Amino acid sequence: MLNRKGSLIVLSGPSGSGKGTVLGEFFEKYADENVFLSISATTRNPRPSDIDGVTYYFKTVDEFKNMIKNNELLEYASFCDNYYGTPKKAVEDKLNSGVDVILEIEIQGALKVMETTKDAVFVFICPPSVEELEKRLVGRNTETLDVIKKRIDTAKWELTNIEKYDYLIVNETVDDAASKLKEIIDAQRQSVKNNKEFIKTILNEVEL
Amino acid sequence: MLNRKGSLIVLSGPSGSGKGTVLGEFFEKYADENVFLSISATTRNPRPSDIDGVTYYFKTVDEFKNMIKNNELLEYASFCDNYYGTPKKAVEDKLNSGVDVILEIEIQGALKVMETTKDAVFVFICPPSVEELEKRLVGRNTETLDVIKKRIDTAKWELTNIEKYDYLIVNETVDDAASKLKEIIDAQRQSVKNNKEFIKTILNEVEL
Repeated sequence: MLNRKGSLIVLSGPSGSGKGTVLGEFFEKYADENVFLSISATTRNPRPSDIDGVTYYFKTVDEFKNMIKNNELLEYASFCDNYYGTPKKAVEDKLNSGVDVILEIEIQGALKVMETTKDAVFVFICPPSVEELEKRLVGRNTETLDVIKKRIDTAKWELTNIEKYDYLIVNETVDDAASKLKEIIDAQRQSVKNNKEFIKTILNEVEL
Repeated sequence: MLNRKGSLIVLSGPSGSGKGTVLGEFFEKYADENVFLSISATTRNPRPSDIDGVTYYFKTVDEFKNMIKNNELLEYASFCDNYYGTPKKAVEDKLNSGVDVILEIEIQGALKVMETTKDAVFVFICPPSVEELEKRLVGRNTETLDVIKKRIDTAKWELTNIEKYDYLIVNETVDDAASKLKEIIDAQRQSVKNNKEFIKTILNEVEL
């Protein structure tokens, strides 16, 4: 359909929900050229594998603070002494050209976006059970028990926010979860709010 | 996922939008055993091909009036001296057992359901243009010009209600429209409101 607006899909899930893996599978198997993963701006130093404008938009602290001041960020947070945020304009340009944008952010950030962005669609990725979540976090085996315990507590708090979201994907298998994400994104393409241009055109024809 | 609630999908579209054909294609190619087309109650006389409880629930006028009085209908209308309506209980039983119910009704009826049924999902099927709609109505060639003109005027009025719906399917080809209906129904299965039982369970686990 011509002139469709893209959907802003805000995707969150606790550490251990497997959202990174699901997103990877989604982009490998299900995404078409009209879905785009939002690129964050950050003040952290680029790593050798980073490409400015592809993995991140790299900014100085002053540049980032200016973006905050000028209301150029959809949401931002600081983490390990670095700022991370989502530049509004890049997202809006994509949406206006009919491309769906997936924004993978923490629950805290998503709650902020809920306040300001009525038209976004909020998707929560969730493990099948708290037991499974704990298993996955412990199974990584890369952290001390204290860090793991803290992650589990955070994840539990995060789960208490599911009902603020529009959709819930229970990540039982990666492929199933990725295909469910595709279903949600596909459906949005038919939403009335993304098809205002078509509606305007046909209502004009009615008046003729 | 266990204990999911079904979605009530209210489907409307003007005469000439092809919604009947799209529904037929959907049930032939895309529906699984968890999607059900709602059966109307009616006071009209059964035809030889009718089966009570399958094509319609056949009611006497008194029975139907009692259903109205007892608030047992989701919506109803009279057409050619007969009553037609949607029995609430049959729909709710299906939804509670996790089955999605498609309710194909006129726009007038859908507007009534919008007032009473917050959790329903409203889907409008629309021709690609008013010109195409007129072509399809004239092409049927089974009516007088006066009847066709009246249908076109009704259809035009109906189109002015698109924005009250959640989703819009532009019926360019039957197969494309049927697959879009499937996408919308699939996505609803992940909606937070249809997965309250799972959310309750995992929130209980969080508290342990």
